[in-house]
Amino acid sequence: MHMARRTGRRPGNPDTRESILGAAREAFAERGFESASIRGIATSAGVDPALVHHYFGTKEQLFKACMNFPIDPAEVLPQVLSGGPDEVGERLVRFFLRIWDSPAGAAGVALMRSAVSNDWTARLLREFVTTQMIRHVLPSLTTIDQADAPLRASLVATQMAGLAMVRYVLKLEPLASAPHEVVVAAIGPNVQRYVTGDLGAAAAAAQRE
Amino acid sequence: MHMARRTGRRPGNPDTRESILGAAREAFAERGFESASIRGIATSAGVDPALVHHYFGTKEQLFKACMNFPIDPAEVLPQVLSGGPDEVGERLVRFFLRIWDSPAGAAGVALMRSAVSNDWTARLLREFVTTQMIRHVLPSLTTIDQADAPLRASLVATQMAGLAMVRYVLKLEPLASAPHEVVVAAIGPNVQRYVTGDLGAAAAAAQRE
Repeated sequence: MHMARRTGRRPGNPDTRESILGAAREAFAERGFESASIRGIATSAGVDPALVHHYFGTKEQLFKACMNFPIDPAEVLPQVLSGGPDEVGERLVRFFLRIWDSPAGAAGVALMRSAVSNDWTARLLREFVTTQMIRHVLPSLTTIDQADAPLRASLVATQMAGLAMVRYVLKLEPLASAPHEVVVAAIGPNVQRYVTGDLGAAAAAAQRE
Repeated sequence: MHMARRTGRRPGNPDTRESILGAAREAFAERGFESASIRGIATSAGVDPALVHHYFGTKEQLFKACMNFPIDPAEVLPQVLSGGPDEVGERLVRFFLRIWDSPAGAAGVALMRSAVSNDWTARLLREFVTTQMIRHVLPSLTTIDQADAPLRASLVATQMAGLAMVRYVLKLEPLASAPHEVVVAAIGPNVQRYVTGDLGAAAAAAQRE
C-alpha cells in the first residue's frame, strides 16, 4: 500500500508507526471510519493512544496516512468546488487529469490495482471515498437536494473511476492520448449532469422511498 | 484467466487446447488481433494450423476462447443496438446490469481484476474491446459520424468500466444496491450523449486534426 512518496518530517520509530498504521487499516476496513477509535487502534497496536495522536494527529489524519492517497481531498476539493456548481463537472475532470498525468498518477494506478485485487483495500477505499471525499464535497454544493447527494456522488465516482481505468490502465485509444481539453469537453458535461442535472424519474422516486 | 464456466462439447486433447490458447493469448497481446495469425499461433504451439481451426474455428472464435468473455459480443450487441440509436444508452446500461447481476458477473469481476493487475491481460482486453466490441457496434449506428466513432466508443467504455468498478468492485452505496431502473435512468442518458450527443468543440477539433 505504498502509494505516494511522502515528504517532510516523520516522527517516531518506524516499527511503531507501521504497527499503528496496520492496526488502523484493519480497524477502518472492518469497522468503518466512524466506529473505529484511536483508543481501539492504540490497543491493537500495543501503544498508548497519546502516541497515536503524537505520530498522526487526528483520526482523519491517521486515515489519510493509512491510504497514502496521492492528494489530500480536504485541501484540494474545496478549491475545485470554489467556483460554484456551474461547470463543476469540467473543473473536476480537468483537475483529475492534472493529477493522473502527474507523477502522482502512478500512485493512483497502484491504489486502483490494490482495490480491485483485494477486498480489504476495496473496503478501505470505499470508506475513504465516502467519509473523506463525498462528505466534504457535497455540503458545498448548496444548490442540490442533499437527499440526492449520495447517489450523485456515487455516479460521479463511476465516471471518474472509469476514466482512470480506460485512459490509464487499459489505455484504450483515442482516449488514452487525447489532450486534456478534448477529455474535459467530452466528459465534463456528463459529470455536470451527475452533480446538478435531472437524474430521471426513477432516481427521484428512489430518493423518496 | 478462468472467467466463465463453459458448457457444451470441447473437442480435443486438453493439453493441446491449452498450449494453443497460451500461444494465442501471447500472439494477440503482443501483436494485436490483426497481425496475429493462426499459422504463427500453430507454430508457437507446435501443432498444425488445421488443428487450431478444428479446435477453435476462426481467428475471431479463437480470440473469444482466449478471453473466456462472459458474453459473445457479436451475438449480443446487435440485439442491444437493433432498436436504433435513440435510447441506445439506456438499453446498453440495462443490458450491462443484467449481465453483471447474473452469475456471469463474477467472470466480469475476475476479468477486471486480471486486467488491472496484469499489463498483459490489459493489452488483451484492450485488443478485445477494440476489435470484437467497438468495431462490431459502431457501423450499426449509422447516424453518427464514423470519424468520431472511436472516441465515442472509448467514452462509453469509461462509463461502463466505472459502473462495474463502483457497483461491483468497490460496492459504493447507494449505487451498489440501487434497482436497475434507477441506474438506467441515471446513467443511460450519459451513455446516450457519448453515443449520439455533442461532444464539444474541442472534441470536434481533435477529429479534424
